[in-house]
Amino acid sequence: MSDLQERAKALDTEDGLAPLRKLFTLDDTVYLDGNSLGALPRHVPARLQEVLTREWGELRIRSWDESGWWTAPERIGDRIAPVVGAAAGQIVVGDSTSVNVFKAVVAATRLAPEGRDEILVDASTFPTDGYIAESAARMTGHRIVPVAPADVPGALGPRSAAVLLNHVDYRSGRLHDLPGLTAAVHAAGAVAVWDLCHSAGALPVGLDAHGVDLAVGCTYKYLNGGPGSPAYLYVAARHQAAFDSPLPGWTSHADPFAMTPGYAPADGAVRGRVGTPDILSMLALEASLDVWDGVGIDAVRAKSLALTDFFLECVAAYAPEGRVTSVTPAAHAERGSQVALRCEDAEPVMAALIARGVVGDLRRPDVLRFGFTPLYVGFADAERAARVLADVLTGSAAPAA
Amino acid sequence: MSDLQERAKALDTEDGLAPLRKLFTLDDTVYLDGNSLGALPRHVPARLQEVLTREWGELRIRSWDESGWWTAPERIGDRIAPVVGAAAGQIVVGDSTSVNVFKAVVAATRLAPEGRDEILVDASTFPTDGYIAESAARMTGHRIVPVAPADVPGALGPRSAAVLLNHVDYRSGRLHDLPGLTAAVHAAGAVAVWDLCHSAGALPVGLDAHGVDLAVGCTYKYLNGGPGSPAYLYVAARHQAAFDSPLPGWTSHADPFAMTPGYAPADGAVRGRVGTPDILSMLALEASLDVWDGVGIDAVRAKSLALTDFFLECVAAYAPEGRVTSVTPAAHAERGSQVALRCEDAEPVMAALIARGVVGDLRRPDVLRFGFTPLYVGFADAERAARVLADVLTGSAAPAA
Repeated sequence: MSDLQERAKALDTEDGLAPLRKLFTLDDTVYLDGNSLGALPRHVPARLQEVLTREWGELRIRSWDESGWWTAPERIGDRIAPVVGAAAGQIVVGDSTSVNVFKAVVAATRLAPEGRDEILVDASTFPTDGYIAESAARMTGHRIVPVAPADVPGALGPRSAAVLLNHVDYRSGRLHDLPGLTAAVHAAGAVAVWDLCHSAGALPVGLDAHGVDLAVGCTYKYLNGGPGSPAYLYVAARHQAAFDSPLPGWTSHADPFAMTPGYAPADGAVRGRVGTPDILSMLALEASLDVWDGVGIDAVRAKSLALTDFFLECVAAYAPEGRVTSVTPAAHAERGSQVALRCEDAEPVMAALIARGVVGDLRRPDVLRFGFTPLYVGFADAERAARVLADVLTGSAAPAA
Repeated sequence: MSDLQERAKALDTEDGLAPLRKLFTLDDTVYLDGNSLGALPRHVPARLQEVLTREWGELRIRSWDESGWWTAPERIGDRIAPVVGAAAGQIVVGDSTSVNVFKAVVAATRLAPEGRDEILVDASTFPTDGYIAESAARMTGHRIVPVAPADVPGALGPRSAAVLLNHVDYRSGRLHDLPGLTAAVHAAGAVAVWDLCHSAGALPVGLDAHGVDLAVGCTYKYLNGGPGSPAYLYVAARHQAAFDSPLPGWTSHADPFAMTPGYAPADGAVRGRVGTPDILSMLALEASLDVWDGVGIDAVRAKSLALTDFFLECVAAYAPEGRVTSVTPAAHAERGSQVALRCEDAEPVMAALIARGVVGDLRRPDVLRFGFTPLYVGFADAERAARVLADVLTGSAAPAA
């Protein structure tokens, strides 16, 4: 056993979160793609079977009340809330992240002071945020100002209505300064909208503590909700009364079953709902969140940093010189829970890794992404991934420049 | 056995669709709420178990390709297409009906000739359509003109951009004249958007045959997709190249995995996609659609009309004089697949019906709704429902006026 393998073993032994791994369905694969699709919590299939056979199959329509289907969006929102540092009553689950970005950005422009016409958008954002923000801008008479997150403070001004930022960059894994940028947005009198897709469940977000206005996130990455599980919308309590949704569907109505022709929005987080909730996906997510019971996000963060540090150390020790370069910041304060390595021949390298049981993913053209989900990835996984990567890189010549 | 009971027995014996009932999980309940939540097709739990344990649990991220997750929205759209009279390649599944109404209404205003500023909306519509259309109007600089469907031809004019109509009224069960109204909309140079929630799967729609421009619908009523299963959007082939979505999420991009900052829409129905598809709800729907294999919508329609005719006949024979009045049109050409009875004390009457195993639903303040799903409701069910209704009405005095 090599030195790094022994270190891995010791780190796994000391790891207080290690027992959580057995809550998930995993095999011999080193699964480093939980930042794209989280692994299956073992108990979810049995729970969903009950939803299907008992709640849908036998109770049918009665389940909207008796099985708590109707209130699932806000109930599950309250389960996510502690993971992202929000008090209850501010998060509602439903729709895709893209749809929630639309709600949040349009609503942000309506919360902003009159007469401001600019929406600042993270220029390195996951594309859907930019596409949807562009549509929101077009439909609300604003213009988009693309800006690198670090440059936001300098770009803010009296024309800034809203700012849409990613907490962690999906490609590089860079963690942006949510507290500092939110404060800068507020100092300029604008509204801060954060996309938490790549941070929620991996590190502390502190939505309430840092005064975030609006936030969205998906639930199928570090929250393990299942493929395409519904996203969520956070509307800070202080903004709820003025939150003006561009998608005022009937389930956000103050009295939805009165079915009145005039729209009157519900109070609270419920105002962010739109249509009938997709119960199967939603209740799978709810069950998945059980794995968070008693888990503190600070412990998750500590392990995440230790894992990515250790992986980078193993890569540095094992990989042939010059074949991969980390684009993930070395500073902890700037690092999410993934490591992105630039590699000229990333596509065949990732294919070879997957064939050898190390599953990460590719961001074209040249980025190998490895996500570290602290609930089920261990240090031995990190060491093995680096070792297999080194083997693959050694076995394949670097392409001619 | 009474005369009507004998008639019911004979009708059930002759019913070519009767064998389909065994494909569903049903019990002794007379389930007449399939127009709100369709019953569970028996094979769905096993299929979803496979999706959970094998596709998510074992293949994980690989399932986006290997299990066909990525293409599910358009693949399932093509499964729905024949049920609503559409050729392949025009329907995409995803999001809620409300979200699809937003896409369709905004896109309709963009397809309409320049300079038109009115959106006509069915004044008796299911509320969400009205709320969402109002938001679409606000965001696109149009104004809403509420109009009864029958009055649409007279209300159309050179200012009409788009018209949003329900094929079947959710409350009364009235079937509107889709071919005639669509033709009138086109004659005025406007764009026709139809909401098929209460017709798809219960009667022929003929989207292509009647030249409908855009349509939306849910899948959890007569299509039995499960609670809150994803809705769908139809964009007629001739409009696809100009279809300009207000929700241009990344999965509607021509090359989504290139993740380019600029949006370039995909061709075809895929352009109506938004975010990551909710796979669990979506694949439950896909499995549910198996019950349609080999079933013709004309046979479904014939049985639906026979069922509602027979139910109305039984109610007339059994119910105490003057306690209930049908608000569902007697004419077949104006009837959907539900019977709505006005009843002064509808709320306690429906509660008593449900307690006695006849499940319909209530539309406040005074409408008892009974949905007839031809795939699994039989004539004996209709007779029993009417008989129990009569018992309940006889046993409870009519409230003082």
